Amino acid sequence: MWGGRFASGPDAVMEEINASIGFDRRLAAEDVEGSRAHARMLAATGVITSGDADQICDGLLTILSEIEGGTFEFSRALEDIHMNVEGRLTALIGAPAGRLHTARSRNDQVALDFRLWVRARTDEAIAGLEALIRALVAQAEGREAVIMPGFTHLQSAQPVTWGHHMMAYVEMFGRDLTRFRDARARMNECPLGAAALAGTSFPIDRELTAKALDFDRPTANSLDSVADRDFALEYLSAASIAATHLSRFAEELVIWSSAQFRFVKLSDRFTTGSSIMPQKRNPDAAELVRAKVARITGAFVTLSTVMKGLPMTYSKDMQEDKEPVFDAADALSLALAAMTGMVADMTPNEARLREAAGAGFSTATDLADWCVRKLDIPFRSAHHITGALVKAAEERGVDLADLTLEEMQAVEPRITDDVYSVLTVDASVASRTSHGGTAPDQVKAQIARWKERLA
Amino acid sequence: MWGGRFASGPDAVMEEINASIGFDRRLAAEDVEGSRAHARMLAATGVITSGDADQICDGLLTILSEIEGGTFEFSRALEDIHMNVEGRLTALIGAPAGRLHTARSRNDQVALDFRLWVRARTDEAIAGLEALIRALVAQAEGREAVIMPGFTHLQSAQPVTWGHHMMAYVEMFGRDLTRFRDARARMNECPLGAAALAGTSFPIDRELTAKALDFDRPTANSLDSVADRDFALEYLSAASIAATHLSRFAEELVIWSSAQFRFVKLSDRFTTGSSIMPQKRNPDAAELVRAKVARITGAFVTLSTVMKGLPMTYSKDMQEDKEPVFDAADALSLALAAMTGMVADMTPNEARLREAAGAGFSTATDLADWCVRKLDIPFRSAHHITGALVKAAEERGVDLADLTLEEMQAVEPRITDDVYSVLTVDASVASRTSHGGTAPDQVKAQIARWKERLA
Amino acid sequence: MWGGRFASGPDAVMEEINASIGFDRRLAAEDVEGSRAHARMLAATGVITSGDADQICDGLLTILSEIEGGTFEFSRALEDIHMNVEGRLTALIGAPAGRLHTARSRNDQVALDFRLWVRARTDEAIAGLEALIRALVAQAEGREAVIMPGFTHLQSAQPVTWGHHMMAYVEMFGRDLTRFRDARARMNECPLGAAALAGTSFPIDRELTAKALDFDRPTANSLDSVADRDFALEYLSAASIAATHLSRFAEELVIWSSAQFRFVKLSDRFTTGSSIMPQKRNPDAAELVRAKVARITGAFVTLSTVMKGLPMTYSKDMQEDKEPVFDAADALSLALAAMTGMVADMTPNEARLREAAGAGFSTATDLADWCVRKLDIPFRSAHHITGALVKAAEERGVDLADLTLEEMQAVEPRITDDVYSVLTVDASVASRTSHGGTAPDQVKAQIARWKERLA
Amino acid sequence: MWGGRFASGPDAVMEEINASIGFDRRLAAEDVEGSRAHARMLAATGVITSGDADQICDGLLTILSEIEGGTFEFSRALEDIHMNVEGRLTALIGAPAGRLHTARSRNDQVALDFRLWVRARTDEAIAGLEALIRALVAQAEGREAVIMPGFTHLQSAQPVTWGHHMMAYVEMFGRDLTRFRDARARMNECPLGAAALAGTSFPIDRELTAKALDFDRPTANSLDSVADRDFALEYLSAASIAATHLSRFAEELVIWSSAQFRFVKLSDRFTTGSSIMPQKRNPDAAELVRAKVARITGAFVTLSTVMKGLPMTYSKDMQEDKEPVFDAADALSLALAAMTGMVADMTPNEARLREAAGAGFSTATDLADWCVRKLDIPFRSAHHITGALVKAAEERGVDLADLTLEEMQAVEPRITDDVYSVLTVDASVASRTSHGGTAPDQVKAQIARWKERLA
Repeated sequence: MWGGRFASGPDAVMEEINASIGFDRRLAAEDVEGSRAHARMLAATGVITSGDADQICDGLLTILSEIEGGTFEFSRALEDIHMNVEGRLTALIGAPAGRLHTARSRNDQVALDFRLWVRARTDEAIAGLEALIRALVAQAEGREAVIMPGFTHLQSAQPVTWGHHMMAYVEMFGRDLTRFRDARARMNECPLGAAALAGTSFPIDRELTAKALDFDRPTANSLDSVADRDFALEYLSAASIAATHLSRFAEELVIWSSAQFRFVKLSDRFTTGSSIMPQKRNPDAAELVRAKVARITGAFVTLSTVMKGLPMTYSKDMQEDKEPVFDAADALSLALAAMTGMVADMTPNEARLREAAGAGFSTATDLADWCVRKLDIPFRSAHHITGALVKAAEERGVDLADLTLEEMQAVEPRITDDVYSVLTVDASVASRTSHGGTAPDQVKAQIARWKERLA
Repeated sequence: MWGGRFASGPDAVMEEINASIGFDRRLAAEDVEGSRAHARMLAATGVITSGDADQICDGLLTILSEIEGGTFEFSRALEDIHMNVEGRLTALIGAPAGRLHTARSRNDQVALDFRLWVRARTDEAIAGLEALIRALVAQAEGREAVIMPGFTHLQSAQPVTWGHHMMAYVEMFGRDLTRFRDARARMNECPLGAAALAGTSFPIDRELTAKALDFDRPTANSLDSVADRDFALEYLSAASIAATHLSRFAEELVIWSSAQFRFVKLSDRFTTGSSIMPQKRNPDAAELVRAKVARITGAFVTLSTVMKGLPMTYSKDMQEDKEPVFDAADALSLALAAMTGMVADMTPNEARLREAAGAGFSTATDLADWCVRKLDIPFRSAHHITGALVKAAEERGVDLADLTLEEMQAVEPRITDDVYSVLTVDASVASRTSHGGTAPDQVKAQIARWKERLA
Repeated sequence: MWGGRFASGPDAVMEEINASIGFDRRLAAEDVEGSRAHARMLAATGVITSGDADQICDGLLTILSEIEGGTFEFSRALEDIHMNVEGRLTALIGAPAGRLHTARSRNDQVALDFRLWVRARTDEAIAGLEALIRALVAQAEGREAVIMPGFTHLQSAQPVTWGHHMMAYVEMFGRDLTRFRDARARMNECPLGAAALAGTSFPIDRELTAKALDFDRPTANSLDSVADRDFALEYLSAASIAATHLSRFAEELVIWSSAQFRFVKLSDRFTTGSSIMPQKRNPDAAELVRAKVARITGAFVTLSTVMKGLPMTYSKDMQEDKEPVFDAADALSLALAAMTGMVADMTPNEARLREAAGAGFSTATDLADWCVRKLDIPFRSAHHITGALVKAAEERGVDLADLTLEEMQAVEPRITDDVYSVLTVDASVASRTSHGGTAPDQVKAQIARWKERLA
Repeated sequence: MWGGRFASGPDAVMEEINASIGFDRRLAAEDVEGSRAHARMLAATGVITSGDADQICDGLLTILSEIEGGTFEFSRALEDIHMNVEGRLTALIGAPAGRLHTARSRNDQVALDFRLWVRARTDEAIAGLEALIRALVAQAEGREAVIMPGFTHLQSAQPVTWGHHMMAYVEMFGRDLTRFRDARARMNECPLGAAALAGTSFPIDRELTAKALDFDRPTANSLDSVADRDFALEYLSAASIAATHLSRFAEELVIWSSAQFRFVKLSDRFTTGSSIMPQKRNPDAAELVRAKVARITGAFVTLSTVMKGLPMTYSKDMQEDKEPVFDAADALSLALAAMTGMVADMTPNEARLREAAGAGFSTATDLADWCVRKLDIPFRSAHHITGALVKAAEERGVDLADLTLEEMQAVEPRITDDVYSVLTVDASVASRTSHGGTAPDQVKAQIARWKERLA
């Protein structure tokens, strides 16, 4: 009836659509951690005995080692990780296991486990971004004056430096870093104790569990605690934005690796070859990094759409919250690691970059600015003069610097010899001394600021 | 460095991001099927010997049974399903295995395998939609005159019938059905023989492999064959639209199952209970079905974004094409099966539906229409008269049919006794005889058309 | 050829696809503000004269009043708002206008204008969220003990209070508030002075313009300044998450307004009636609010996909950054305003809420907890006892509190008279005294914290 | 309170969020067309008099010319285009106007208008795709043997031809064409007559209106007719897939226009220059086309999310259906027109393409295939031999064809002189004679098939 997938009728369908153990087993460590904190708190507040708590906590550690060791037998009939763990605990320690779920519900339990998991992946994203930033700073340092073309529209516009280009990405990933930090601070409240949705009548101490689990405080409203997943949405949006940045750099690496550009050589460790075309160095890792943003944005759409229009508090739809986040977190980790590896290993082709930077009258703007500064010509007029000079050079088939002074003065009589001093790519780059500009000293200052920030 | 995930440095990262065997093993059957057709064709055209082809085909069948039997050892070092199968084939039959890849490349091979997989899931979607339609028709049949409220804005508007409501979804899923059929017809061209991207110089017969694999014809352009994935995007969009329809029905089932509505009773097999609240019948399956559209739309976004702006022909980004489609296909299958089960099992609460249909002056439009027909009053004026009558009934706290003729004539003197004949929900429903209207005979005719169509 | 839309051939197509004045005129005020700050800085640093700066600034104010007054003639031939303003400035003041663009480019100019616009809408979102939170707190205050059903799966689970439910949304919108504040702090760096992409050789003072435009500091890297739009993506993601919260509340209002629920009465000012069915009060505003998340998430997808894979620095694709943000900002403003209005005006149907809260054995959990507390029975066992008691009550067709003590003791002999004290909805609600629970004192404490926070 | 946007309090908010006249005025022509068909049918079935129908139809034509002439005064108080038109009709012709809305409701009226609009844009998309295909075929024709590199991973893989590359896009856009045709056929059913949701008791003739409006038939179920918008979702998905194809070609044009590639020269009419850098030819149109897929996919997400989980039949959320479709349709039209213009005008740089095609041992696969064919070596072994030969060539710094026979035989002794015949790009291309391959005769055959199909 279902194309051969569902042999045994509707009951099997219900079991298959309903069970989450196939994926929420990834929350095993968080589930055990949360339950242990809960048991300790129940003992501390006198809800259960210390002896029971000890047995529960020991049993849970045993279960965790079984899971990590691969000997735990997961049961789909027990639906999810929470019931699998509790079921096994009962088998291990008997009656006291039945006291663990006092003053708790699966609703606050899953909210806690998932939040702990997302928080850990947020920390991982922060570490991954820091590593990438370090690799970029290392690429930039010492190459503050390595000249390359600055592009707009993939057309050469003005000369910039390799160090400057690398540091542009440092700024982007630096903002991503603080975005994850803000998300982490916001999500760092403990939902445990919200119980099913209304709180509990047991004299629990939510501050205690919050502290034990490294949260800043307990959540303030029990309904909200079991009903919302905005912490996961915020994680996904920060991941999506970071992945957008990664995709842009990846695109550059793909283009720069082409035979036509040859701006960069990626290492063997991040490219694939071809047994038949040994010269080939396919930028597979860069391409895969470029694609990852798609999955992460897709995951944001998924979770946003799942949550849209759900009445309070918990609805079963929310079981669909985990897989997109799991998938996105894996994608982000891999993309960050792969990009960091590529950046650490890659070698700019400095000769080729310099040559490309000088082509195409890339210092025409410098000429216009010279006219403004030295001849006090309004910029818009200087713009027109420069256009005429470029045209003259183009017609003669030479660069701007190859025009004679007479040729220049034929366009604008007040031009002097001094103009030649601004027409080289080195002069151009050196002159951009405004804050954040491409002048090597500016780039060095940026690098220094980041090294201090990262220290 | 990567939160403990990447112990052995960048090489491990590259292997992890690059390998697809973790997910593309789902293409094993398709890979074997495609390779067998290719080997037979190579023998038929004399490119390889019949003996070699026989060995290859036998070896491939052995491999497939190993995979299906769970004894095949997948190797991540061999990257993907194609190299895993070919590697094993070499181990099994030796030298002839080396001839299988003649006139072929991984580029057309993966394009073929993935297309075969998507085509099979398209067939499954068609079968699943047909089953759901049958279940809906069965729900409708015999209940063409079971009266229920027709809603707009979740406010009762006019009485309709249960059969009519079910058949509305039949129309939606019927369009989904043809959408998948159109997609299937469009994707049913065989890319095998496109080789790396340019075609091949071997005298292959692409018609032969196309026919062997049940394709209508070979693809017409080898570059396009390895570069495009629009067949997968179209599958996803059809699935997303079908899932939108499912989500709407699922929402209705959730609302109808609430204590406040009680319009329908879902079966035990598609609800979960609670050991503590035995009266509870949580509509978990309906909620999960409601959520599935999110994953599928997310998958469409993912694949659309992966493909955006990729230059021709194959780029490694396209390795990210499979997982969103796999996930969406699983989600659609489950959602269709679960919905079909729920529909087959559910029981409308006819008394409750009828009661709700009659409340709220739901036949006010019938009164207005009567004025137009019998008194020749323009509709807009009839509208105003009816408004006044409803107001009068509301003030008296009665239904429209409980107003006396004098009370009616106080508003519009020409109203006669005949008006009472249109004020019952049965009369209202019976009167909507326009094509596709809610009159039971219309609903019966719709059911008959569908039974014929499905026969 | 183009369905009659493009009469005059390709040139017209190019003009139509290229021009942005049709939408970027919304940046007029920001463009004028930015140019005025730039001119003042150029004068302060001696790049232009004070006299020129004065003329420029006066001229710009004139232009702004022309635009606001509706007398400005926009020209599509001048492409965008920047060239339209500069063109008009030249007409107004002549030569000095040509000096305004010194040390600046359209690239940093548009980056500035758009950032100023997004920052203003971020402030608006913050104000809108604060207003909504105030309205919710006002709804909650005084109704901390108004009992209503707490739902999971749209099934009644445990009694909670109206105040508690309102305060749950306060927490959600409160996090949205800080999300926008974090976004604002991160985007509050001034890109002006990045020029085309490389910075400038003029001795500009970027601190000065940053300060004049209320930025915290200038951006740190000129390439990044013109190339990135993550501030807009972050705005959209914060808006999308807030809109998800709005959609959930809107869904509740729609369901609560149905004839079957009747939990709330929306005011005439936020519903539409029907001339023919005067009792009808369609929750149009709630439905429209529910839909807005769709547009905003769609806008996030759009901008994320636009930016995906763009090489540095500015590409024309980025002209597509504005319309999705404009549309999303309008959607969010309207949705916040409409929701605030609805919340301020709506009236809970307290009798109906209380009645619904008591139905369905909603205090069964209280009974189980009583067994744990008073009889020292493990929770899982207490769970089973309660299940048996509910079943007994259901069979007798009565509520739990209507079972006799004998009937109770038949299930669990140790049960005493004391159990009846926990079986009322009031007792249930009062007992949930854990931090953030539904006990009225807890809700009052939450309200007090928020009133302090908002003060 | 709302950042100055809502001066006059909540009522203004409701009016602003509720009114659709700001955007649905684009449906004016469809509204008039639908109303005229409805009036004629009412007269034909005797529901109204012919005289009334004549007055109505004449009045509607007057209104349409007022709207097209720009003299119509739209009123926001009248909410939408339907009430604006009807209001004006009453002003123009008095009482008979009140009869137009007989047997109709705004629900089926808006469903009809929107469907007519989407159908027209579907026709426009089909025409636009046909024009683009024609331009591509014209680019291909005569250049079937113009050699260019075939890329995978943006790395040169094998030589192909310009004609072949163009025809690959023809296949993609050809599938897009049939996708729109299928969508059109599916949506071509007339919802008019569904009335509010239940059909009508008036003796209307739905076949008549369907025929008058060029529909294939009336819709089959009145609830479905007013509740669904899948025709719009299908339009958006077809548009999104087509736009993905456009984005890929646009990316190629951007890359090919770079100074490093110089594969193509775009015309002045589809590029922008720079007054200061006259050599610059920014591919703005290509960049904007590349971006359009983002808006269209975003629109699909929006409408999909709007519809998700809406209970039947009409909910006000559905008012949000139009703007994303309007925006996407405009984006698609522009993108198709711009791409067609670019394709028609662009000039391949044949010398540069040929040179690039020959670089990088691009005929290595031909050498391997020669070994298989002539020496009966299994392909995998031939692969290894070729690898060794390429390595030898690389070490000598020459092309494969420059290796001496002795050098070749040092790797594989059986190689003969004949091998040189397959090592040129011309020979390589000529040899790919498999169906759909890059051999010029194959490309010519493809072109011929398309010319016939388009005729």
